[in-house]
Amino acid sequence: MEKLAVDLNADVGESFGAYQLGNDEQLFPFLTSVNIACGLHAGDPLVMEETVKKAIESHLAIGAHPGYPDLQGFGRRKMALTVREVKSFLIYQIGALEGFVRAHKGKLVHVKPHGALYNEAAADPDLAAAIAEVIQEVNPELILLAQSGSEMVKKAREIGVKVVEEAFADRNYTREGRLLPRNSPNALITDPAEAAKRALFMVRERKVPTAEGKMIPISFDSLCLHGDNPSSVGLARSIRQAFQGSGIQVVSLNQLVR
Amino acid sequence: MEKLAVDLNADVGESFGAYQLGNDEQLFPFLTSVNIACGLHAGDPLVMEETVKKAIESHLAIGAHPGYPDLQGFGRRKMALTVREVKSFLIYQIGALEGFVRAHKGKLVHVKPHGALYNEAAADPDLAAAIAEVIQEVNPELILLAQSGSEMVKKAREIGVKVVEEAFADRNYTREGRLLPRNSPNALITDPAEAAKRALFMVRERKVPTAEGKMIPISFDSLCLHGDNPSSVGLARSIRQAFQGSGIQVVSLNQLVR
Amino acid sequence: MEKLAVDLNADVGESFGAYQLGNDEQLFPFLTSVNIACGLHAGDPLVMEETVKKAIESHLAIGAHPGYPDLQGFGRRKMALTVREVKSFLIYQIGALEGFVRAHKGKLVHVKPHGALYNEAAADPDLAAAIAEVIQEVNPELILLAQSGSEMVKKAREIGVKVVEEAFADRNYTREGRLLPRNSPNALITDPAEAAKRALFMVRERKVPTAEGKMIPISFDSLCLHGDNPSSVGLARSIRQAFQGSGIQVVSLNQLVR
Amino acid sequence: MEKLAVDLNADVGESFGAYQLGNDEQLFPFLTSVNIACGLHAGDPLVMEETVKKAIESHLAIGAHPGYPDLQGFGRRKMALTVREVKSFLIYQIGALEGFVRAHKGKLVHVKPHGALYNEAAADPDLAAAIAEVIQEVNPELILLAQSGSEMVKKAREIGVKVVEEAFADRNYTREGRLLPRNSPNALITDPAEAAKRALFMVRERKVPTAEGKMIPISFDSLCLHGDNPSSVGLARSIRQAFQGSGIQVVSLNQLVR
Repeated sequence: MEKLAVDLNADVGESFGAYQLGNDEQLFPFLTSVNIACGLHAGDPLVMEETVKKAIESHLAIGAHPGYPDLQGFGRRKMALTVREVKSFLIYQIGALEGFVRAHKGKLVHVKPHGALYNEAAADPDLAAAIAEVIQEVNPELILLAQSGSEMVKKAREIGVKVVEEAFADRNYTREGRLLPRNSPNALITDPAEAAKRALFMVRERKVPTAEGKMIPISFDSLCLHGDNPSSVGLARSIRQAFQGSGIQVVSLNQLVR
Repeated sequence: MEKLAVDLNADVGESFGAYQLGNDEQLFPFLTSVNIACGLHAGDPLVMEETVKKAIESHLAIGAHPGYPDLQGFGRRKMALTVREVKSFLIYQIGALEGFVRAHKGKLVHVKPHGALYNEAAADPDLAAAIAEVIQEVNPELILLAQSGSEMVKKAREIGVKVVEEAFADRNYTREGRLLPRNSPNALITDPAEAAKRALFMVRERKVPTAEGKMIPISFDSLCLHGDNPSSVGLARSIRQAFQGSGIQVVSLNQLVR
Repeated sequence: MEKLAVDLNADVGESFGAYQLGNDEQLFPFLTSVNIACGLHAGDPLVMEETVKKAIESHLAIGAHPGYPDLQGFGRRKMALTVREVKSFLIYQIGALEGFVRAHKGKLVHVKPHGALYNEAAADPDLAAAIAEVIQEVNPELILLAQSGSEMVKKAREIGVKVVEEAFADRNYTREGRLLPRNSPNALITDPAEAAKRALFMVRERKVPTAEGKMIPISFDSLCLHGDNPSSVGLARSIRQAFQGSGIQVVSLNQLVR
Repeated sequence: MEKLAVDLNADVGESFGAYQLGNDEQLFPFLTSVNIACGLHAGDPLVMEETVKKAIESHLAIGAHPGYPDLQGFGRRKMALTVREVKSFLIYQIGALEGFVRAHKGKLVHVKPHGALYNEAAADPDLAAAIAEVIQEVNPELILLAQSGSEMVKKAREIGVKVVEEAFADRNYTREGRLLPRNSPNALITDPAEAAKRALFMVRERKVPTAEGKMIPISFDSLCLHGDNPSSVGLARSIRQAFQGSGIQVVSLNQLVR
């Protein structure tokens, strides 16, 4: 039965000062877990505190969403940090977010790296190991939320850090199980009905259709949703409703750690 | 006998990237407590981690030293943050530092605000209360290290937050017990022998000489030392040696909370 | 006839990295002059370059819109910079913007300070003089665009810097000719028809109604429009159309210097 | 006779806020040209203005020294900026520095990229072309100061931008004419007499000894000196004196453009 439960996570708290980004308010009702930006690639202390408060009120699992120190590039540009630098920058960001979580009597549940850091650590064993090691040093109870089948998943298991794998219902995959790059013509699924159908299939079969129409196995316990624009919120609603109408349990990721 | 014990604290970890500031290495042997910058007015994640490690190895009480988000101004410029903004920025910085302390199996002991925030909160009851409230929210075991007789001390006591008062052996005081502004001709004591004599007198008598040569009572359990330049390190050495030669106990501030 | 011509300016180029702010594209057709953020309180080099290019294509007078170095606070918080610091920060920002203007074969026409710097310099003669002096040092052909009747206007005239005064058709004034603070109940005029009527009256009569309903004289050659939200764009359209329907010339501020 | 003249340049103005870096004051007397940091990887508006003033007083050729927007990493880390991003960031920085130069009635003479940008553009034709194009757009009179034999030199010549090549008297070279990485055992020449001898040889013969002791030809008209520490200042003095005692003219780079 375990197969028929899934976590729904999203990256939130990405506003900064006068700058609004994302539709957190509208996305929250469809989620079970949130990954909150920590002030270096997005977010600021006020946004972090506000987002933590709402996440606690909404009974969501709270995760730190650390990234490269590059606000202008939104953490999406590769930066040649050493492994030691990455580790210090991760501890800083996880600690800062945990400050807010404890001030509001919540509990930090997980960590999900952002942007270029996420992408690089998916393929780079050293970077992947550094992330798992930081979790073990800071708080070994924390769960790593990482891309399905990535180096992050392997290294976390090797090192003994809890990990939950995530997949994407609104992205097409290559035959190797990687995400089709965003700039590919059919990289994104934008139709809510199509995404919901896909999400249901993925959860039931633990398979995902590739861009070429083949089915490949995929291991995951969490689906990542987006809230960048009103249509992405509609897609999140559509997926959540499809699960409710099909008897699939939607639970936060701490209940899904294997 | 309580009178004859004192904590020696200093602001450390103020380097940033390629920029070195202070002589932490040379200052550490004379201290019992350190206040570590948290990355917004000074310090960066690598400096913070390195400084936390050394402080733990040196058995010093570790404090967060949060400031205004103004690296170029080193947190010394007034900024019109709202009380709510100050609180979020404090939680962020204390949390970030505590991340490093926990990663290295240490314990965060205290908080001392920096620069313009310290000076404003010394006189502004709302700001002072905000700081004490943050401590209570984040971790009520933390001690506030604050200027002797300031609003911070009053508000911390009112709110029920532990507080240790600090004084300065290398600064002249006004008759109201305030520090003579740095740009006054005789604001600074730079002669190590003079500073050591003064420190001894202050600890024994709990009085401080004003610029006019009067003696005024001063309540404190910690002296703040500096490490900006080699001569300030000499001054720290001189004070520490004077205490050792006079039977005055030098202990970290957590042993001095009243 | 001079009375029946007016400049329409707006603050633009305030996006940053992944963060969009304002509706520049929709606002541009109603303007004759733009004030472009310079990267310290808003804007980044890519946004600046893009905005300069569009402004040149749209034949608008281009101004630098420098502010305090406080991205998180959007330059709206007072910061205790010295006059010398303000001058250096102004030269930096004006120079950076002029780089883009020259790279695209345009011409920098004016400077308008932003946010807290604008508000403080409106009342502080030293700060106002510093701004005029910077213009004289950097490029004495530049025009200062400043709040009607402010210290900036007085100091610019004293020092011999060209100045254009601006007023607001979407804000209520106090009897002293100051803007009613934004948080006052009737501070903002949000009805496009009302704003257009008011703008026409202001241009024809060089008077403005106060919150109490009195008329006070006001000296200005430019009206400041806003583009924060779709309704503010509607208001800009409404004012521009009212002028076109009433024979009032809309010209860029360099044609209105007295 | 052209062979017996050389420019002596250094990277200066790298302090930031309370942080001092380099020994500009002591290095200036030995230089003919300076490359001034522009605030994104080092330097701030106050440091820039002060450095520009001193450079004008010292009759040095003034260059902009732009880098990646990474103050914490001092612009030494690779960052995956697109070519378009690099161009905008360069225009921004060159413009900002030129603001100070014009405010103080000086003349901007050249541009030298910093750190990771310099190193990457030395080998990457697209990045090298982008730098030359920016110079042509911003001010075609500006000279590019670039590593001897690098892509930057080739692309500048192709595009028609003036270029001066630089070499290093305190670094060992590989047989391919590249700098031995800083972490190689004999990468740095630290003995002032040795460096002066080497500099004389390089200027007279336009050859440089490799780490293996071979001589390879090197094309250059400028030598880059350093001022990071007192010993590097001694080395600069030693080189300058050796030139004076040997009839080699020391002139600023604008007199050496080919």
